[in-house]
Amino acid sequence: MENPLLSDRNVEFLLYEVLDAARLCELAAFREHGRETFDLFLAGARRMARQVLFPAYRRMDAQAPELRDGRVRLHPLMKEIYPQLVSLGLTNATRPPEVGGQQMPLTVASLAAAYLMAGNGAAYGFVGLTSAAAHLIEAFGSDWLKAEFMTRLYGGQWTGTMALTEPHAGSSLADVTTRATPTSGGHYLVQGGKIFISGADHDLTDNVVQMTLARIDGAPAGIKGISLFAIPNKRLEGGRLIPNDVHVAGAVHKLGSRGIPSLILSFGERGDCHGWLVGERERGIAHMFQMMNEARIMVGMGGVATASVAYHEALAYAKTRPQGRGATARDPQKPQVAIVEHADVRRMLLRQKAIVEGGISLLATTALQADLAAHADDAPARRRAALFLDLLTPVAKSFPAEWGFDSNVLAMQVHGGYGYTSEYLPEAWLRDQKLNSIHEGTTGIQGLDLLGRKAIAEGGAALGILREEIDRAIARARSAGIDAAWCQRLDEAATSLLEVTQHLGAKGMAGDVEGMLLHSADYLGLTCVVTVAWQWLLQAAVAREAMNAGRAPADFYAGKLQAAQYWLFTELPRAELFAELCRSGEDSYARMQSDWF
Amino acid sequence: MENPLLSDRNVEFLLYEVLDAARLCELAAFREHGRETFDLFLAGARRMARQVLFPAYRRMDAQAPELRDGRVRLHPLMKEIYPQLVSLGLTNATRPPEVGGQQMPLTVASLAAAYLMAGNGAAYGFVGLTSAAAHLIEAFGSDWLKAEFMTRLYGGQWTGTMALTEPHAGSSLADVTTRATPTSGGHYLVQGGKIFISGADHDLTDNVVQMTLARIDGAPAGIKGISLFAIPNKRLEGGRLIPNDVHVAGAVHKLGSRGIPSLILSFGERGDCHGWLVGERERGIAHMFQMMNEARIMVGMGGVATASVAYHEALAYAKTRPQGRGATARDPQKPQVAIVEHADVRRMLLRQKAIVEGGISLLATTALQADLAAHADDAPARRRAALFLDLLTPVAKSFPAEWGFDSNVLAMQVHGGYGYTSEYLPEAWLRDQKLNSIHEGTTGIQGLDLLGRKAIAEGGAALGILREEIDRAIARARSAGIDAAWCQRLDEAATSLLEVTQHLGAKGMAGDVEGMLLHSADYLGLTCVVTVAWQWLLQAAVAREAMNAGRAPADFYAGKLQAAQYWLFTELPRAELFAELCRSGEDSYARMQSDWF
Repeated sequence: MENPLLSDRNVEFLLYEVLDAARLCELAAFREHGRETFDLFLAGARRMARQVLFPAYRRMDAQAPELRDGRVRLHPLMKEIYPQLVSLGLTNATRPPEVGGQQMPLTVASLAAAYLMAGNGAAYGFVGLTSAAAHLIEAFGSDWLKAEFMTRLYGGQWTGTMALTEPHAGSSLADVTTRATPTSGGHYLVQGGKIFISGADHDLTDNVVQMTLARIDGAPAGIKGISLFAIPNKRLEGGRLIPNDVHVAGAVHKLGSRGIPSLILSFGERGDCHGWLVGERERGIAHMFQMMNEARIMVGMGGVATASVAYHEALAYAKTRPQGRGATARDPQKPQVAIVEHADVRRMLLRQKAIVEGGISLLATTALQADLAAHADDAPARRRAALFLDLLTPVAKSFPAEWGFDSNVLAMQVHGGYGYTSEYLPEAWLRDQKLNSIHEGTTGIQGLDLLGRKAIAEGGAALGILREEIDRAIARARSAGIDAAWCQRLDEAATSLLEVTQHLGAKGMAGDVEGMLLHSADYLGLTCVVTVAWQWLLQAAVAREAMNAGRAPADFYAGKLQAAQYWLFTELPRAELFAELCRSGEDSYARMQSDWF
Repeated sequence: MENPLLSDRNVEFLLYEVLDAARLCELAAFREHGRETFDLFLAGARRMARQVLFPAYRRMDAQAPELRDGRVRLHPLMKEIYPQLVSLGLTNATRPPEVGGQQMPLTVASLAAAYLMAGNGAAYGFVGLTSAAAHLIEAFGSDWLKAEFMTRLYGGQWTGTMALTEPHAGSSLADVTTRATPTSGGHYLVQGGKIFISGADHDLTDNVVQMTLARIDGAPAGIKGISLFAIPNKRLEGGRLIPNDVHVAGAVHKLGSRGIPSLILSFGERGDCHGWLVGERERGIAHMFQMMNEARIMVGMGGVATASVAYHEALAYAKTRPQGRGATARDPQKPQVAIVEHADVRRMLLRQKAIVEGGISLLATTALQADLAAHADDAPARRRAALFLDLLTPVAKSFPAEWGFDSNVLAMQVHGGYGYTSEYLPEAWLRDQKLNSIHEGTTGIQGLDLLGRKAIAEGGAALGILREEIDRAIARARSAGIDAAWCQRLDEAATSLLEVTQHLGAKGMAGDVEGMLLHSADYLGLTCVVTVAWQWLLQAAVAREAMNAGRAPADFYAGKLQAAQYWLFTELPRAELFAELCRSGEDSYARMQSDWF
């Protein structure tokens, strides 16, 4: 049996039973769409993921790109793969027809991408980065940049990157030192270095455009002095591409996601690196962050996809691998049983299912809010969705990185000794997954973003929306006949989350910002288990309604109820521990001195 | 600053302040020893670990052994390393002078081994396996086997392995099918295959002895029909070593611990593989398990050692890497601060410290019980220690595998993007650590062993001992002036552990063995957090006594109190969640059907 990457039935369930995605087509932006176009798009991505991307995965992981004489050579399979991804319309699927796109809702497009990322995250990475780079130019670039750069990026002739990080600064973008000097020719001359730039060079297309944060001469120090530039590896002069003084200074050897290179870049070693300002001067961070929500949703979706493919592998292994016998059936003359029959293996599988399907549901829900924030009919609805999206984004980015990693660990463990070998795939997915707690803002930074900005913005308005949605799910669960104890657990945990937020917000208002943020990791943990519990109670309600109505397949719905029960009774109780740490301000590491370690 | 692998000060603290290891020298077996010989032995191991093993680690990880023409070639450095390990007396350090050993207490020897495993676990693996193989022959072998095999193993001329696992059976030893046919020559002819056999072939010494589980013709099915054999790769005939029909059928490509090969073995392809029975017929499993405690303690110690070296690497990185500024000091003109100044980084470091030093303390305590079980003056004391050792062993094996892995993950995370590259070492230690939840009995099997055997043996006598020791630690903490709330937390969690055990034991007695064992993973988790909390309260008490007495270094003791607080207030609260799952018998995965996934 081939690994399905994601469960088709579950994607269908989410889109059409839980999220009612067809409703999106009532909005002006999506009126050309319907379930038929959604399903066609998903079917294309699925086919590509299963028939093209996944079969190339192991080879691309085993043979990472090579850096030779300053140029990167990718695995040869990428040359076959990339044009196919472009021809599926993936670089601009969610963009409007004016720029060649299909205006597909992100809700649908992100699920399609989940198949592709589950099949081969590194291969999809080239598309994801190119799409994000082009989208930045579409949103903020001049007409000239759109014509020259964006069109080629969306069209697949060139690819794009995000060039933010510098070796000495890491997450601290305030300390970016790459410099841009204005010229009379409309471009800037750029000098500086970047690190960890994925896909910054390759032999796939003619050119790469690096969307780069840099500081214009004389700009103020810190975040406020940073501007955004488009810097191509080669620039067009007289209709020809000539070198633009962008150099690959080295490659880092990554643990995972090995199909796409992570490079060290040097701009302007010869003083001849041309960059073009994108958007307004000194608004670079703001421009970049306008795109960041979508990037973080895609990272989160990539995380659940990576957990999903490993879960399906472990499930198939557990159903077919005979070993041992039941705890009370030890007759050694009897044949061994499939390991899925052992309670502890079922525990490991159910935990994976709960994380994977809870995570996909959270991500699709977040994507839906992004669609509503951009395209809802009226301003208040867009405003509500935007607030909610802001709150959900750090959760949707971090939950897969942390819980998804645990899920990948369990997929290896189910494989026993074989899971520890590179003859089996789970170890590769574990390596891939680890990146997600680090890039696009570490988990620590997501916690600070969630608590220090999103949760307390506008007097906690976003949490009010979450509470409304949770109450709606509880009401639906009650009327479907879900056990009152399940509903009560979520209700109590949600109440804790709101109380803790008020408590911490008050601390910050009183001037104790460090005290407010001390347990931001625990606050993020609390929010993660509560929001996923919300997703599970909602899924349980929908499943129970389907069972009440006698809809098939009963096995699928029964599995949903078991996974919901697991989450509400095994994982959600952690909410109170997280909440108590936030409330008490437990001060062990606050008081720890660096000499005491 | 070189990575110290383990903190010398902490080892000294454990041995002489917490465990009072000098008291061991009052026992007849250890009367030749004193703090001086302990310290000399430790110093030798430390020096070897830091100067020889650790400098070879990265190269041995990068260049795994090669299998060519049926023979394994190790990294050339191993040829320099192995004789030095042997000459330090490590193969038989804990064995009596009659077999060439120093009769070093395991308490001391296991801490010495911790340095070596932190420096290069794979290199130490050859010693550990050889020592265990020789010890089996010492305990159960004939005089001839001792003279011919044991002497050469302890002496370093040959190495040894444990050959238990077969491809179709994995953890299910009852299904071992390797066969042994008696001959008139005193040996058996062996046929069969084994998998995941570490160090089963190499170019290090003349010969390898595989301690192999096999079934004598006509033996009953299942565990009861299994015997233990010594099978050398080459056998002595007429004073010469000739091939013994043992073949390397393949190598598995391991994720970590790459310096020692994991091999697939085939015995008797030509019908000419001689094996010698060790101990009694059909007592193979019992004999093997007599050695298993020590093997599991060493795996546990290897786990904390692997977490320790990564923790020290992360700590040094955090103290020297400048990045960002405090939450309330965002002036970008000011220099960046070392990341150890960020609360969330201190959180990650303190969690690592709590796991590493709590784990080392648990392991040394377990080793002390092994020493007492073997060498205490009177039979009741030996009996008490043996019971306690049995209980502690699955905990000491599993805690480092599970919590230690989390600690290794955090060491990577502290390194940010660099932690995700093989230019830095934390990713290698993460790979190494992952093995520990799988080999020498998976974590799932440790849970079944703990709950299904150890905790309920003799009416729960071992838990009664744990309770006594916890009460003693609480009394000591109280009189040292430790906050009553700290003591109360441990007291309550210990009470929960005992109540839960009674509840589950009663379920088993009533015939519901599956129900009793359903939450064995949670029961193991409960026992882990409680026993480590015991270790931390005890360490806190000792640290507080030292501070009360004005002993230096105050920084060291202050750090101990912070880590103890962290464990008691952040990790110990999980005990109640684990306990509740055990008590309620939460049935989500019990009722889950394989078709519902």
